[in-house]
Amino acid sequence: MDERIIVFGGDGFCGWPTALYLSRNGYDVTIVDNLSRRNIDNELEAYSLTPIQPMGTRLKIWREKTGKQIKFYNFDVAVNYFRLLNLLKEIKPKAVVHFAEQRSAPYSMKSAYHKRYTVSNNINATHNILCAIVESELDINLVHLGTMGVYGYGTAGMKIPEGYLKVEVDVDGEKKSIEILYPADPGSIYHMTKTQDALLFYYYNKNDKLRITDLHQGVVWGTNTEETLMDEKLINRFDYDGDYGTVLNRFLMQAAIGHPLTVHGTGGQTRAFIHIRDTVKCINLAIENPSNDNRVKIFNQATETHAVKWLAEKISEMTGAEIRYLVNPRIEAPENNLRVSNKKFLDLGLSPTTLSEGLIDEVISIAMKYKYRCDTSKILCRSKWRSDINLGDEKDLLKETVQ
Amino acid sequence: MDERIIVFGGDGFCGWPTALYLSRNGYDVTIVDNLSRRNIDNELEAYSLTPIQPMGTRLKIWREKTGKQIKFYNFDVAVNYFRLLNLLKEIKPKAVVHFAEQRSAPYSMKSAYHKRYTVSNNINATHNILCAIVESELDINLVHLGTMGVYGYGTAGMKIPEGYLKVEVDVDGEKKSIEILYPADPGSIYHMTKTQDALLFYYYNKNDKLRITDLHQGVVWGTNTEETLMDEKLINRFDYDGDYGTVLNRFLMQAAIGHPLTVHGTGGQTRAFIHIRDTVKCINLAIENPSNDNRVKIFNQATETHAVKWLAEKISEMTGAEIRYLVNPRIEAPENNLRVSNKKFLDLGLSPTTLSEGLIDEVISIAMKYKYRCDTSKILCRSKWRSDINLGDEKDLLKETVQ
Repeated sequence: MDERIIVFGGDGFCGWPTALYLSRNGYDVTIVDNLSRRNIDNELEAYSLTPIQPMGTRLKIWREKTGKQIKFYNFDVAVNYFRLLNLLKEIKPKAVVHFAEQRSAPYSMKSAYHKRYTVSNNINATHNILCAIVESELDINLVHLGTMGVYGYGTAGMKIPEGYLKVEVDVDGEKKSIEILYPADPGSIYHMTKTQDALLFYYYNKNDKLRITDLHQGVVWGTNTEETLMDEKLINRFDYDGDYGTVLNRFLMQAAIGHPLTVHGTGGQTRAFIHIRDTVKCINLAIENPSNDNRVKIFNQATETHAVKWLAEKISEMTGAEIRYLVNPRIEAPENNLRVSNKKFLDLGLSPTTLSEGLIDEVISIAMKYKYRCDTSKILCRSKWRSDINLGDEKDLLKETVQ
Repeated sequence: MDERIIVFGGDGFCGWPTALYLSRNGYDVTIVDNLSRRNIDNELEAYSLTPIQPMGTRLKIWREKTGKQIKFYNFDVAVNYFRLLNLLKEIKPKAVVHFAEQRSAPYSMKSAYHKRYTVSNNINATHNILCAIVESELDINLVHLGTMGVYGYGTAGMKIPEGYLKVEVDVDGEKKSIEILYPADPGSIYHMTKTQDALLFYYYNKNDKLRITDLHQGVVWGTNTEETLMDEKLINRFDYDGDYGTVLNRFLMQAAIGHPLTVHGTGGQTRAFIHIRDTVKCINLAIENPSNDNRVKIFNQATETHAVKWLAEKISEMTGAEIRYLVNPRIEAPENNLRVSNKKFLDLGLSPTTLSEGLIDEVISIAMKYKYRCDTSKILCRSKWRSDINLGDEKDLLKETVQ
């Protein structure tokens, strides 16, 4: 009998390709998802550039192509605790993968409603899963998708370690060395919920000896994996809108339709990146190398770091797209120098897809192919962190900054 | 016109005497409370030793005694966001005091329901208040009651500073000194929610420049303040049950009814203490010395530290009560050495009520006077942190430990 895995949030951008990868690699996969990401598409009137299929179609095609069956349950893990608990008891999974959180920083900043939804949804989803694992009395390894954003950017200029930080403290005049969770410095409500998750993990590991791996992921780019390429009806989401589109995918879209590449601020912000193909491999590695119960295992899930400006220039060179600098809606340092340890995944054998090899393919196969589906009015970011600019106003939104 | 204050959770053990103290000291006070603490009395079938009156009676008597009117609204700030927002806009308070959280560690550990209620209630209450302050666009100082428990006990043996910790980190071989939020080490679900609150405060101060004071309070003891003593109908709660009774009040009750003083584990756990009279003074000092918007102001609200065993011996000496050592339901070190900075409140002029002067009075005036109301079946703690003991079983519960 195949080992069983539950993927919470298995209909989303990372969840769907992960579910397929695990299914293809011999796991018996169950997806739990309340389709919140598709419902937010309806709310924002902004849809995936790629024509994603309903879950029923996705799973039917997967079965036809591979002979493998993925089960699907539509319910909200942040709300339906007993359904969650009963499912754990019934399936008895070896591991559960937890993607079931609202994952856009701009969305989390749109209004009081969006802040409150993000906090309540993310914290209760994570806590319900932890609480249900304890109550089930099963030995289930939890793999959670976190974010590099919990670290803030570039504390004291040091290379960001994987989760824990060695520090020296003064005890009555004597120096002692201790290791602590890396001090959290979230930049949005969304990122804050992930720092709160980290405390939940710390506590449940300490008190209940739960085995937990927390993956601090960089900005994901790319669209398809080997599995989602097996049939067009298995295609993954591609978000290019101002809320859910990550920076690189937005640039690719802009280049494909001849829109200027819009850089917030000076573009000096450095971010960590990972291709979606590496995301799914990392999740698999985390499942195959489970945490023991000593402490939460934390990996940095990112393969390269670049300044946003560098990315824009790179895509501009490839496509001839113009670059335009706009005011930055976020409260952050204009420039930062980010260096990230990612030794743990490399040690486990990860061989990353780099930007230089993957970019052209992505522009041609996705952005160009589906550009007829693009709603150009959705490209710019309308969420704001700052009260001194009104980004709902097109005038301010398009205000160029002096470079 | 008097300056206005809203006290969230103003019907509880700390909230009620705080509301009266502020009212007497010239503030125009509004209480918001959903009476959750009284409803939990009903759930646990364990009631205040002292005969607390319904809110209507309390406020009527207060008005008769002092001529001052306190307004009261019964709603849940964790749920009714718009009522909360409208109230802020209508009252325009100078400050709000936030006690509106489930505050018992043992209660938070009773079952999955209690864990989930504590997390969702506490995080959403705190977040709704922060979010509403931002949306109101008013300049409101937030004073929050936290707990010493966020620190864990005795990290590396150092004296616990007030909220922030100076550490040295290694940046490419060079030592740099940075100041961080003291690393959180919560010992229960309840304490964990307070460490999550700290992240909410950190973030809302950083992003929205909210002015916030977080009071890391020790274990409160005592019952009445000058104000609650003005009439018996103004009396404050006294909890002696295994869930809500704090250690010292449980000992006082046990001594009064001739029950052995029940110490968990070796009694070597050191805790920080504060009398309820000093709690209300500290809240007032925090309101009168508001935080600026640079960073969250954190005070340690405790006046002395003692080992639990020392407390039991002290009360035993005073009353002749026997001491009995039971298994510890908590997961914690058997002994710890806790030293706490509390310089900030002393600098602001706090002159504390100490255990040595207050204890006898408390035994006689409260525990002896109302002992006829005690339900002795409620004294022992039935919540457990550990899966290796079954504290619902009287046999295990009363198992004495070898000293």
